[in-house]
Amino acid sequence: MNRIQSIKNPQVKQWKKLQTKKERDKTHTYMIEGFHLVEEALDYKDMVHEVIISENKEIPLQWDLDNINVTSVTDEILQYISETETTQGIVAICKQRTNEHLLLKNAKLLLIDAVQDPGNLGTLIRTAEACGLDAVIVGEGTVDVYNSKVIRSTQGALFHIPIIKGDLFQWVEKIKAEEIPVFGTSLEGAIPYKEVNSQNRFALIVGNEGSGVNHQLLEQTTRNLYIPIYGKSESLNVGVAAAILLYHLR
Amino acid sequence: MNRIQSIKNPQVKQWKKLQTKKERDKTHTYMIEGFHLVEEALDYKDMVHEVIISENKEIPLQWDLDNINVTSVTDEILQYISETETTQGIVAICKQRTNEHLLLKNAKLLLIDAVQDPGNLGTLIRTAEACGLDAVIVGEGTVDVYNSKVIRSTQGALFHIPIIKGDLFQWVEKIKAEEIPVFGTSLEGAIPYKEVNSQNRFALIVGNEGSGVNHQLLEQTTRNLYIPIYGKSESLNVGVAAAILLYHLR
Repeated sequence: MNRIQSIKNPQVKQWKKLQTKKERDKTHTYMIEGFHLVEEALDYKDMVHEVIISENKEIPLQWDLDNINVTSVTDEILQYISETETTQGIVAICKQRTNEHLLLKNAKLLLIDAVQDPGNLGTLIRTAEACGLDAVIVGEGTVDVYNSKVIRSTQGALFHIPIIKGDLFQWVEKIKAEEIPVFGTSLEGAIPYKEVNSQNRFALIVGNEGSGVNHQLLEQTTRNLYIPIYGKSESLNVGVAAAILLYHLR
Repeated sequence: MNRIQSIKNPQVKQWKKLQTKKERDKTHTYMIEGFHLVEEALDYKDMVHEVIISENKEIPLQWDLDNINVTSVTDEILQYISETETTQGIVAICKQRTNEHLLLKNAKLLLIDAVQDPGNLGTLIRTAEACGLDAVIVGEGTVDVYNSKVIRSTQGALFHIPIIKGDLFQWVEKIKAEEIPVFGTSLEGAIPYKEVNSQNRFALIVGNEGSGVNHQLLEQTTRNLYIPIYGKSESLNVGVAAAILLYHLR
């Protein structure tokens, strides 16, 4: 185990930088926090680059950390590199998954267009994973998947489902070429979701909290669906709407 | 219109105190922020006690503020009493609804047991209202409905649906006495939700983010339901789970 005691150590500065999307993109890594998340990540050992633990905490005996760099640091350093108000005393640096290979045949997919709120994106990933989807495809304009609040809201689900960043227009074409139906969500020019039956394979697109799914994208879909509103609210939360549709469609 | 220029004015201190649950409970009032929410609240004029606006903002011409106290204040005062990082320049003090009379016959209800996260509670209220429910009943141990984050997450839905604080054990008995089925949510001793058909009248209970619905409460229900998990996640977000069940049951 390595040991770092000075907050001025260049390695500490490097860890701290992972709070920015720029650095996460450059290094293809990201930070996760807390014993529960680190333990879940260790199920996919290739994904964990290194573990950083407070000198006042112990690595659980059952953890297999062979070939993983472990560094013991002061509480001050851990708090400095952490994004939570009171750190649990452990973080890990993980590798972003890149070049995921996705077999489209029989795929169930969630496409995310410009969702802004980290909690919403995390909940969408968590729901997609729980619903047994094959992948989440995240379009441009969406908050960074590796933002710490997104990771927290996924409750670990991001380790269990491929998350692909890509151009949604290209993906919709690719998916339709496989004869998989693509469902947009829209309040206009759409049919009530219960008019569509459950599907062996499908792609669902959900969109921005304020403006919904990009209009040009909605023109490319197989059908667009809406969820009836029986009260005075204008709409549902995007995470809620996706959940109702995914559990109906599958 | 009144005018307050000094941040030391006792009225300013009184407004600021509404950031605490204690003061909200004592005065049976709460604060809402932003033009959109204040406008929605004004649809129910009896609920709005007073409006406080920045001296640099204008009341929209179409607003009807007859018989409502309006005070113009400095931006400094508004920022001081506000709970958002950058205020929109307007807040209102609203009256909490008490002694709601609820006709149980044919009611569709959501019962909330010890939900802790303000965003989750707000989303639950928003979904219940959108789904056309008749009331939300909030049990003890749940975060305060009039917490500013809860209000924000409801997106105004809290003005459109009765929200009743009460003892859930008593409510379950009362609801069952009307022969309305009460559905708990649980991962154990429960049936898949799709085995239950849609209902003209029902009550659904959702529970705490970590521990779920109180076990003794689950023993009092008509049936307990679960949502199948097809992935490796342990559970769904409580707002997501409620939405799937409410839209299935109604």
